[in-house]
Parts: sequence; C-alpha cells; structure tokens
Amino acid sequence: MRTNVAIIGAGPAGLLLSQLLYQQGIDSVVLERRDREYCEQRQRAGMIEHGVVELLRDAGVGERMDREGFAHDGIELRFDGRSHRVDFRELTGRSVMIYAQTEIVKDLIARRLADGGQVLFEAEATAVEGVEGDHPRVRFTHNGVEEVLECDVVAACDGFHGIGRATLPSGVARTFEKSYPFGWLGILANVAPSCEELIYAHHANGFALHSLRSNEVSRLYLQVPADTDPAAWSDERIWDELATRFALDDSDWTLKRGPITDKAVTPMRSFVTEPMRYGQLFLAGDAAHIVPPTGAKGLNLALRDVSLLAEALTTWYGKGDTALLDSYSDSALRRVWRAEHFSYWMTSLLHVHPDSDEFDRRLQLAHLSHIADLPAAATHLAENYTGLPRV
Amino acid sequence: MRTNVAIIGAGPAGLLLSQLLYQQGIDSVVLERRDREYCEQRQRAGMIEHGVVELLRDAGVGERMDREGFAHDGIELRFDGRSHRVDFRELTGRSVMIYAQTEIVKDLIARRLADGGQVLFEAEATAVEGVEGDHPRVRFTHNGVEEVLECDVVAACDGFHGIGRATLPSGVARTFEKSYPFGWLGILANVAPSCEELIYAHHANGFALHSLRSNEVSRLYLQVPADTDPAAWSDERIWDELATRFALDDSDWTLKRGPITDKAVTPMRSFVTEPMRYGQLFLAGDAAHIVPPTGAKGLNLALRDVSLLAEALTTWYGKGDTALLDSYSDSALRRVWRAEHFSYWMTSLLHVHPDSDEFDRRLQLAHLSHIADLPAAATHLAENYTGLPRV
Repeated sequence: MRTNVAIIGAGPAGLLLSQLLYQQGIDSVVLERRDREYCEQRQRAGMIEHGVVELLRDAGVGERMDREGFAHDGIELRFDGRSHRVDFRELTGRSVMIYAQTEIVKDLIARRLADGGQVLFEAEATAVEGVEGDHPRVRFTHNGVEEVLECDVVAACDGFHGIGRATLPSGVARTFEKSYPFGWLGILANVAPSCEELIYAHHANGFALHSLRSNEVSRLYLQVPADTDPAAWSDERIWDELATRFALDDSDWTLKRGPITDKAVTPMRSFVTEPMRYGQLFLAGDAAHIVPPTGAKGLNLALRDVSLLAEALTTWYGKGDTALLDSYSDSALRRVWRAEHFSYWMTSLLHVHPDSDEFDRRLQLAHLSHIADLPAAATHLAENYTGLPRV
Repeated sequence: MRTNVAIIGAGPAGLLLSQLLYQQGIDSVVLERRDREYCEQRQRAGMIEHGVVELLRDAGVGERMDREGFAHDGIELRFDGRSHRVDFRELTGRSVMIYAQTEIVKDLIARRLADGGQVLFEAEATAVEGVEGDHPRVRFTHNGVEEVLECDVVAACDGFHGIGRATLPSGVARTFEKSYPFGWLGILANVAPSCEELIYAHHANGFALHSLRSNEVSRLYLQVPADTDPAAWSDERIWDELATRFALDDSDWTLKRGPITDKAVTPMRSFVTEPMRYGQLFLAGDAAHIVPPTGAKGLNLALRDVSLLAEALTTWYGKGDTALLDSYSDSALRRVWRAEHFSYWMTSLLHVHPDSDEFDRRLQLAHLSHIADLPAAATHLAENYTGLPRV
C-alpha cells in the first residue's frame, strides 16, 4: 500500500489534515487503532477559536457546526460572589464557537468517506520506519493482517501516548513538562444549561466551569484533587458543590440540576516536545504538546498545527519548495508556547493550589478584579481565548 | 504638646501627609526617631508614577523634581538576547519620573521647615495610646526627655518595623505575607548610565535592572540568593555579571563601568495588613504593606495612601463628615492589592526562581514575547507601571 502522506490517528487533527490535503489533490491514508464508533463518541473539548471556525468552514466541514453550534461572544467570570462578563466581540471583534470535538470528528469522518478518502479504523500502527530518508514506511495491523504503508511523509496525529513521538530516537527531542496537583471532574447532564455563555468560576473551594453541549445537555466541571475517584462523588454531592462554587451574592440565579449521564476525572498536565519534526516524520496536536484544559486550547492547537502542515506539504508537492516544511516546527512551536503560557496562566488564575495560602488567594482576586475593571487586562484574556490571528 | 494629627515617621509618606494637611490648615507634628541627615541620605526607590508626580506638584514640592528629575516615556525589556521597548506614552498617554526618594525627602523636609512645620528628629515614639477613643496620645522621647503628644488622630507612617502596626491589639488585624528566595544586590556607581531609560533584563542567571540617579551616577541591581553577603561580590564580579545579563545579540551596546560607591542586598517580601485603620490610628505606606521592588510600587503606594488620608481628614475637619475616614482602609487596600499583584507578577515574570525548571523558563520567555508582540499585554504592563488613575 502506498500514499503521499501516512497519517496516524483519526482524531480531529489527523482527519482534518487528510481533508486539507485532499482539497489540494494530495493523497493520504489515515490509520486509526480504534473503531469508528469509539472515535465518534469520546468526549473531549468543545470550544473552537474564531480562526479555527474559519479553517473548518474552508475545509468544507463547517455546515453542521454553523447550524448546530453556539456562537459565543463572551464568557462570564465569577469570583468573590460577583459576576463579570468578558465581551470578546467588543474587545477583539472576534467570537468563538461552542461545538463538541466529537461532532467535528463525525463531520470529518463523514466528509472523508463521502469523498472516497481512506480512513482505516482498527488499523494499529506498530512501527514507523525510514523517516530519516525519502521512503518512510508505517507498519500496521488491520483485520489481523500485518500491512505496510509506504509514503513520502508520516504525520503523527496519534496523541500523547501514540507511536509517533515514541519513534524519535533518544537525544533527538527535548521535552518540557509540568503536572498539576488537581484535575477536573467532568459531567454530562441531561438538563438545559443554566447559562447562555460559559461560566468560569473561582471559589475558595476551587475552580468550576459551566459549559454546554446543546439546549438539553449541560457540561460541567469541578476542580478536584488529582487522584480523585469519580465514584467517590455522588450526583448530589456534585450538584451541591457546583451550586456552591457558582453562587452569586445579590442574585436569584440558580443552577438547574438533572440526570448525570457521564462522570470522569481528567488529569491536568503541560507538556511540549521540541522539535516537532524528525526527518520526514511530523508531529501534530497532542503527540507533540499537551495543555491543561483551562482556556480550551488543546483542540485548537492541534487543528492549527495541521493547517500549517497542510500548507507546508502543499508548497512542497506543488513547487518542490521545502521552506515551509523546514520552518513547520518553529512556526508551530511559537503558537504552542503562547498557548502553553495562556493555559498555565488561566489555570493559575482560577484554580486553588493545595499549597496556596491566603496571600495567593488575595492575589488571584486582585487579578480577577483587574480583568473586570481594566480593558487591557480583559483584552489580553479575550485575544488569547478567541485565538491569536498570527504568532 | 497637642496637635490635630500626630504623624509617626519622617519618610516620604509622613512628610507628605504633614504637608498636605498644612495646605488645608490642619495642624500636625511629625515624630522621627532618626536624625535629619540619616533621613536625607538613605537610598530607596526612584521611580514616581504619573499621578504621584502630579500629587507632589500640587503639594508644592515639585519644583526641583521637575528641574532635576528625568521624565521617562518607557522602559526597555531585555530577554533571550533581544531588546523590546515598552512605550508608556503611546500605550497609556502617561509617563513616569525618575527622581530618588531621598531627594523627595529632602524637598519635603525643607518645605515643611520653611513653612514652620513641626518635624521632630531623634524623637522616638514609645507608645500609642487611647486610639479607641477621641483623645489619642503618642508618648515619645526627645533629647532624652519623655514627652506626650496629644492629638485627634495618629497616622503611622513609620515603616514595617514601626510602632504603629505593633500597637494593634492581637486579633484586630489580619496579615498576608510572602517571602522570596532571592534579593537584589544594588549598587551606586559613579559612571554615566549606559541607558536612556530603565532596562529590565531577564536572563537564565537571573534578573538585572539598570536604573540611574543622574547623568553621572548609575544605579544597578542583580538578582542574588536571599542570604547573599554583598562582600562576597567583588566590583569586577558585579560588573561582569551585569554585562552578562544585559548582553544583546547583534548589538554593539556595552555596559559602562565605574567606581562603585554603595553596595547592599535588599530582601524581597510581599506583606499586607488589613484593615489599615484601628479607631483613630491610621496606617500608611510600609507600616501597612510591603511589595517586592520590581515595578517600584512601594514609594508610590505610600504617597497614594497619605493622599487619601489627607483628603479624608480634610473632609472630617471641614464638615465633620467621617465617610472618607471610614472608607480609607477599603479604598487604600484596593490599590494596595492591585500593586501587590502587579509587583508579584513583574517579579515572577523577570526573576529566575531557584525551584524553576526549563518549562517555567520557556513560559517566561513566551510571556515576555507576548508583551513584545501584543499591544494589550504591553498596555497591561504600562498601565500598572505608570500608575492606575483610579482603583
């Protein structure tokens, strides 16, 4: 089997890359170790930056997003019993789209298959070979058969635990990492959202986030210790704690409760590997970097990576010019580090660190007041949240 | 002895308060335990916010400052071998004044004495009594004699170790504190400054700051471990390390060296006490709060405190209205916490924490690039540095 670009992983990054290359007449094969149903159901992020919305539209997969997604012009911050709205449209002229990653994956799979694209499910890459030269190969097993995919370029869009980064010889890459002593207990609940826009709440007990999936399904998160067993949290305890952290003084706002259909704890980590290229192997998305979920940059970074990579491959195939492939890693990493900083900043702003003291908490409140009161501080948040046009 | 307002401490806060009250016809006595020469020579900060420049002019002590001070429209950031100017005037319309605290003290003492003000040097306050009622008293020793100053109000402008805060009964105040594992080794050198504006440098070895006192005297600082003995740093080692931290790629900028006339290590601490009032005792400046020196907020906060307090006392003496006295602590603390946050933020941005790793350092560089590249981030710095008009 032979193709131009072997793509490992049918997450949003791998699928979008395949679609962008298809639009430029470049052949690719996507190898995905899970089955289609699994890919289309895993719950992940749901906030899409302004520029990434454009990217998905241009890729021809924006139709259902524009119909079913929620365009949000701001977020609500809650702290110290009060509420403050950060108006993205006013501050930056941009807005964001609330549309679940899992829906983007469904749209991309349907689009690729309708166009005759090769997306092989239950096809597990077992080795990436020859990336130092011009004839890389990806060995994989599919339906119990060992196969070889020959290609010009391998794109590893296979996540943090994938074979892509594991292929790098030792000494080639440098990694940077930070773990956090807390995680997010996330729930899906069959209840209309109690908010029109996302609510980011800072409370002495910890951070909470109110998001949504539809007019009937709410998505909510609670900061919990890193080693929390979700089973230790009864539904009632979750709702009570959410109500406490979102509570406002002088307001009759209440949190609507409903049946919880999903409950899981997400660990939080910052991770970057440099460079994002080794020979003809290119890393994109979680294969190269992880951000904590505060600020929802993970999905957006992954899609920006493959947008850059598709542009670089197009220039190479079209003109034989390697300049953009050669600058891919540096260009991607500039945005990655911006997003790493923003994600860390927003995490620090809103979470309660177990080692923090009252001084730290007062600094957080001073910082939040600053964002509420000074346009420059709010603009800084809004620009990063809605996505920097160019870095 | 009797007065309206007993002021403990002839630092810039106590002296300015006395001057502002004098302008409103309110009598005060300043008690200072040191002699005049000591007060006029101790080296402290030298950056005055835009609004505080106005305040000093309005107080009638702006003449020499305007003649001898340096109006600066920006600062220079250095990191990763490159330089970026933050243009305050363009970003905020405001500038700052470089004029040493010790010169402000000289100007204020001269002004108060010329107007017949009572500034008692070598007058050590030994007890503050009766502040719960309407007839407070400050006991002090002067020329070996024990005396009593009767008053309506006591203003403690006597610094972190002063008797003012120590007078608060236990349980009345709450304190917030953070210490840092590094300090500043500061020097005065008889050499023309190698910069036109202040240079704030972030380097893998630590922070460095290039400031100035005049066209012939430079003021420079190096981040050093908290327990550093200045004697361990020879002049040559200091100059070499400064040159390393300020070094630029692709530039022929060099650091001018000259004889070092003063060498001292300043510890770094954040501290706030709440409230800043107890009965008829009001705390101002370092008596109530300390910031690390990065961003030079200490002097500015102290002068803003006494400006608020003078206004409150004027309203009280003039109309019998206690509203501003009653809101003094809350009003002052709003600005204090903003400045605490800014000082902590700027300290974290520029210093190398001994526990930091490469991830942290990359975040700092990403943050600094952000300030260099995005106007909102630079404006946030510029607004805080030049002084928020109203908080």
